[in-house]
Order: sequence, then C-alpha cells, then structure tokens
Amino acid sequence: MRYIRYRYQEQISYGLLEGDMIRPCLGSPETGGLKPAGAAAPLRLAQVTLLAPLRPGKMVCVGLNYLDHIEEFHKTRPTEPVLFIKPLSALLSPGQAIVRPPESSRVDYEGELVTVIGRRACRVSQEEARACIWGYTCGNDVTARDLQPQNGQWTRAKGFDTFAPLGPWVETALDPADLTIQTYLNGKLVQNSRTSYLLFKPDFLVSYISHVMTLNPGDVIFTGTSSGVGPLQAGDRVAVEIEGIGRLENPVIDLA
Amino acid sequence: MRYIRYRYQEQISYGLLEGDMIRPCLGSPETGGLKPAGAAAPLRLAQVTLLAPLRPGKMVCVGLNYLDHIEEFHKTRPTEPVLFIKPLSALLSPGQAIVRPPESSRVDYEGELVTVIGRRACRVSQEEARACIWGYTCGNDVTARDLQPQNGQWTRAKGFDTFAPLGPWVETALDPADLTIQTYLNGKLVQNSRTSYLLFKPDFLVSYISHVMTLNPGDVIFTGTSSGVGPLQAGDRVAVEIEGIGRLENPVIDLA
Repeated sequence: MRYIRYRYQEQISYGLLEGDMIRPCLGSPETGGLKPAGAAAPLRLAQVTLLAPLRPGKMVCVGLNYLDHIEEFHKTRPTEPVLFIKPLSALLSPGQAIVRPPESSRVDYEGELVTVIGRRACRVSQEEARACIWGYTCGNDVTARDLQPQNGQWTRAKGFDTFAPLGPWVETALDPADLTIQTYLNGKLVQNSRTSYLLFKPDFLVSYISHVMTLNPGDVIFTGTSSGVGPLQAGDRVAVEIEGIGRLENPVIDLA
Repeated sequence: MRYIRYRYQEQISYGLLEGDMIRPCLGSPETGGLKPAGAAAPLRLAQVTLLAPLRPGKMVCVGLNYLDHIEEFHKTRPTEPVLFIKPLSALLSPGQAIVRPPESSRVDYEGELVTVIGRRACRVSQEEARACIWGYTCGNDVTARDLQPQNGQWTRAKGFDTFAPLGPWVETALDPADLTIQTYLNGKLVQNSRTSYLLFKPDFLVSYISHVMTLNPGDVIFTGTSSGVGPLQAGDRVAVEIEGIGRLENPVIDLA
C-alpha cells in the first residue's frame, strides 16, 4: 500500500494511492496511523501536489553503511552504525528544489532507502523491530561535502534547509532485503547498488537505534548511501529510485 | 516573565508564573506564542507538576563553547561553532530521572544556558537574531563520555532518552550577557562559570545556526558547557542553576 501526503486546493491531507487514484485518509502517521475515509470523492494523482509523505518527528541517519561507499572514502568498516540527525527544517518534498547554500562549494547527492517507523520502539530486539516498521520511502541525504570534515560533527554539512528530500510515498508492502537502489543525475545513472549490500539492515538499525533513543511513529531512518556520490550544480535534476517504491526527483538551484 | 508548562489533574497546560501563582495561557510556543487566559482560577506552583517548559521542534547544541571547557579537554579553540542535535526523545522534565544506559560506564552532566526561539529565523544577522529569541532556560547536555569518541559523531553519546533535561521555565526578561551559571552535584558546586565566558554568544549562535537551518518558534539552542564536567551515579541529584532564571534539578538512576 502506498501512502502519500498531498496538497489539494490549499488543504494538506494524507491519502492512500491505488493506481493513480487517491483515497483520502484520516489520522496521521504520528498518532495511530492512517485510515481511508470511505466517503470522500477520489482524486487522481495528477490533480494534487505531492508533499514529503510525512513530517518526521526525527530523522535519524546512518553514515558509511554500504561497503562500496566506505571503500570510496577509504574509511574503516564501522563495527557499529554511525548515527547523526537531520533537523526537520531540512525536509523537502518531491519536485521541490534542493538549494545550494553559498557557504559550500560542493553539495553532493546521496540516494538512500528510508525506513519509516509505525510503532513505538524502545530497546526492541531485531525480531521485534520488524513489527515497528510501517514502510519504506526514498531519501536523498544531501551533503555539503566540503563542510563535512570541518569540525568533526556532520550536523552542519548535512543539516542545511532542503537537504532532506523525502518521498514520493511510503510503501508499506515491501521486503527491503534485496532491492535495486539507483540515483540519476540529469537522467544519467550515477549510483547503482542493491539494498542487499547494506552493512546494517533496516531491522538491525531500528533495534540498534531504539537502544539509544525511543523511536516513535512517524520517525524515519535514512539507512546510508552506496558508492557513486557526486556534486550537484544549479540546473541539475537528481532522482533517487528504489525498486518497489518509486522515484524521488528534485531540481537543484543556488540560493538567490 | 516566566513561562511554564505543567500537568494539573491529568491535563497539560502552559502558564505564566507570577511569584508562585500560575495564570494559565492559551496558545503554544510553536504557534504564535502564549497568551494569558484571564478567566481561569489561578493555581499555585506547589499544586502542579512542572514539565519541560516546551516540546522543542529541534534541539540544536553547541560543543566546546567555554574556553575553560576547551582547555579541560585539550581541544583547539574552534573558529566556528561545533553543532550537533539532540532528538526530542531525549527531552526530560524538571525532577524526572536521568537514566544511565547500560551501554555507557560514564555519564556526565553538562550545565548549559539554553536559548529559546520565539520568531522564525532564516539567515538573520546578529542584530536581527536578538528579536528572534523568546527567552532563556537551563539545560543539562547529559553525555555518555565513554561513547563520545566512539565513531566521531556525538549523536549517540548525547542522544539517549532522558539526556536533555530542560527547565524549570522560560525567562523572557533576561540579559544573558553576564550571568552566573553553576552546576551542583548532591549539593556540591562542581561547575561555576559566567555566561560572559561564552566564546560564541546567544545572538551570534542564532544568526550562525539560522544560516544553516531555519530556526522556528519553539526551537532551542543548548549553548555549551563550562569546565568541571564529571560523572553521574545512580542516586545522585544534579542541579543546573543560572542567575535570573532558576534551578533545574534531576535525580539519576540506572536503567532497571
């Protein structure tokens, strides 16, 4: 099932996508989930503006989680996931522009599988973790590469406004074990991997992170990027595509 | 003016504290601020349970911002603020227990002045920043010191549940330029500094951070700790006290 968040006639709603038909939903991912509201007249996808499929309570991210990306940066394989957090102010909807800030001269794309939490997870086992996952979506962990090593912490380099594109929807019926994950820059394939190459898998990550911080419904986990990261320029279009989910595409501009 | 958030008869409300009398408020810090609701019967502070004075949209934190703390850790003076983020799941109310997780064998207190945002700040100047600050409160940037150097990122070491005590209230009429800031461990003074020793001041921090991420009403900034940090044990009581604000006190327990 594909759950979207959308704007239609100035109103923001959640919906269930069936083919290209939208059934409006009641509720929210943060409070008990989404229930289709039977009565409302169905809309078509082309009639609405897609938004990031939810406004996460927190966006926890994992660095260096594909072996090929670790080798790309000549890093040692981590023994535990490296965690960082993106602020909600970085959230970006499908189709909206990634803004290159003047503080950086190299802003990179990083296509990622994003896990969406549906049930509270506090110190859960890997087995229990699976039941806490609501679904998956695509994310782009946009990174000011030149600022990343600046002072050790990645928060600034990865926390600029618009640096967390998310979408196009949450797919809830998906086995994330072995999916194609690709990034296209202006139509050219630049990242091409499989989720089977993830060092730490979604279930493990939910369990691990839940032993640090309680994960709540509507929280998301960016699971890390594969090799092939590279810079974005104004005028570019970047798309993250994951098998069984869909395509998250964003244009790129410079801050005016 | 002192704004509190409190629980009374199972209901959570905001209020204005006048002496020990509470005038209930309407609204929220995130949406247009708090307005005293004239009609309701006033309560006394002793009748209610104080909560963290708001639920921040984001908690942005600054590392290494007092020269004495930088020397304590033999670190180089940073040329720009070092930023990291605590998740909202770490938020803790006054009087609630800081929980030492079994993953760490050294959990430290770090008493801090916390700036509370009242007006949206996106790439504001230092002069404009002042008008975006709603007030100040006390915070404790609790840190699993042994986990901090683990993999470079501080998110895990500083992001455990209960690691962000905040309160007791937001003081809006305060000049933060030169205030006594102290931490007491079981009644003994362990941190003793002045906010005038802050390397990067609140106005500068709001301006700087607003050039990375848009700050929204209800966001907070932990401005860093002075020297004298040290470990917490189960059974301890730790209090952060700032002149003109008040005292944030929390007991410490081990995870059961």
